[in-house]
Amino acid sequence: MSSRALTALKHAEVIVGYKTYVELIKNIIVNQEIISTGMTREIERGAAAIDQALSGRKVAVISSGDPGVYGMAGLILELLEKKGELNNIPVDIIPGITSATSAAARLGAPLMHDFAVISLSDLLTPWEIIEKRLEASANADFVIVLYNPASNKRNWQLKSARDIMLKYKAPSTPVGIVKNTARRQEEIYITDLENMLIYPVDMLTTVIIGNKSTKAAGGFIITPRGYTV
Amino acid sequence: MSSRALTALKHAEVIVGYKTYVELIKNIIVNQEIISTGMTREIERGAAAIDQALSGRKVAVISSGDPGVYGMAGLILELLEKKGELNNIPVDIIPGITSATSAAARLGAPLMHDFAVISLSDLLTPWEIIEKRLEASANADFVIVLYNPASNKRNWQLKSARDIMLKYKAPSTPVGIVKNTARRQEEIYITDLENMLIYPVDMLTTVIIGNKSTKAAGGFIITPRGYTV
Ligand SMILES: C[S@@+](CC[C@H](N)C(=O)[O-])C[C@H]1O[C@@H](n2cnc3c(N)ncnc32)[C@H](O)[C@@H]1O
Ligand SMILES: C[S@@+](CC[C@H](N)C(=O)[O-])C[C@H]1O[C@@H](n2cnc3c(N)ncnc32)[C@H](O)[C@@H]1O
Repeated sequence: MSSRALTALKHAEVIVGYKTYVELIKNIIVNQEIISTGMTREIERGAAAIDQALSGRKVAVISSGDPGVYGMAGLILELLEKKGELNNIPVDIIPGITSATSAAARLGAPLMHDFAVISLSDLLTPWEIIEKRLEASANADFVIVLYNPASNKRNWQLKSARDIMLKYKAPSTPVGIVKNTARRQEEIYITDLENMLIYPVDMLTTVIIGNKSTKAAGGFIITPRGYTV
Repeated sequence: MSSRALTALKHAEVIVGYKTYVELIKNIIVNQEIISTGMTREIERGAAAIDQALSGRKVAVISSGDPGVYGMAGLILELLEKKGELNNIPVDIIPGITSATSAAARLGAPLMHDFAVISLSDLLTPWEIIEKRLEASANADFVIVLYNPASNKRNWQLKSARDIMLKYKAPSTPVGIVKNTARRQEEIYITDLENMLIYPVDMLTTVIIGNKSTKAAGGFIITPRGYTV
């Protein structure tokens, strides 16, 4: 967590967040009021945060990673806009370390060259659009970072994505899988496109697939930037 | 900066970094030895860091943003591998807030949907590859983040990139330009593909180009994630 995020939490009068995330910062909470809801209740959480702010209180809304990457920042702005309050409440978006780079750091340096971040969740995005982005980014040899690779209900998307990758990338392309990055029960796997499907992947997993130059060495995944070393 | 990064700097015996970055952390330096070199001396810096570590000292190598995104992490691993020392020195990569998300936070929430990160620097990458990635990501309607958009010597790449964008994206597509994010002399511009070239862009600028749903409202750029708000 950045010192700016810590300061914001300490100065907040109300903290709004998904239960699991509130749990992770409970050592920071002193006497702030907590509004926590279950997953997929994002709109409810956003509306509650805005109500609190409109009543004059200082509100901190928490997201995992960076709040602007599939997080709460955009939703809060959208809700404020819809209410015609976008310029009536000061909004400060505090960036964080997104899963792409926190997972990458545990794997070595897979993101040293151009990369694409794609969510495999088709709850809010039609699968055809996701598929098109997988095809385009694999064909143009991006390193590819997959968020939301699977959940209890969504179990076929990762295999589909892998099969698209194999149309353009070699089966030996390094793949890194990081579950619960920087949390208790962290799991790190270094594998390749051919074998990646045997590993456990869930809602708290980030998957990184290399480009043509990416290599695995000494327990690290490294994408060369192009220096002559 | 994260608390982990701060702790690592405080515990280091030697800090290695590009002059400008060392300058930014000078309030943290107590009695660590400093090895700083000019820009484009990355290999020299990496080699110096490794020499120090092999001699038994605790070394911190600093990068701006996240060290694994066009930063020093990959180079250090590559140099260690070449020397056959990859598993002889413990390497801890501490993730940071990369420019894509720190710039995004200053603009609102442009990265709420799938995005591609592309460096426009053709010093280490042939322009044809960069061009292919610009085409592919624009055609698949990614939000696009441009790093290294221009320097004193590289002045035509941003216009070329913009012209490729215009083949696939509307001239009114929101564009955010952030210079010196979170530093003194920060500059933030919200414009569109049609007008983006009139703004000053340099080596310390990040450019974010929206997807088909991205909108500008109330001084913010917002890419909807797809919720019905
Ligand atoms: C709704 S997105 C939120 C992303 C978050 N805002 C970020 O910037 O990392 C949820 C996805 O982020 C990734 N993620 C979040 N926390 C993670 C963790 N601790 N370890 C690995 N991946 C994580 C997973 O891919 C997960 O499915
Ligand atoms: C060699 S890359 C290093 C990126 C860095 N490791 C990161 O994760 O942000 C340099 C590019 O990062 C971006 N950048 C770095 N610092 C920045 C800042 N303070 N404001 C805006 N962009 C920045 C610019 O696009 C710059 O050309």
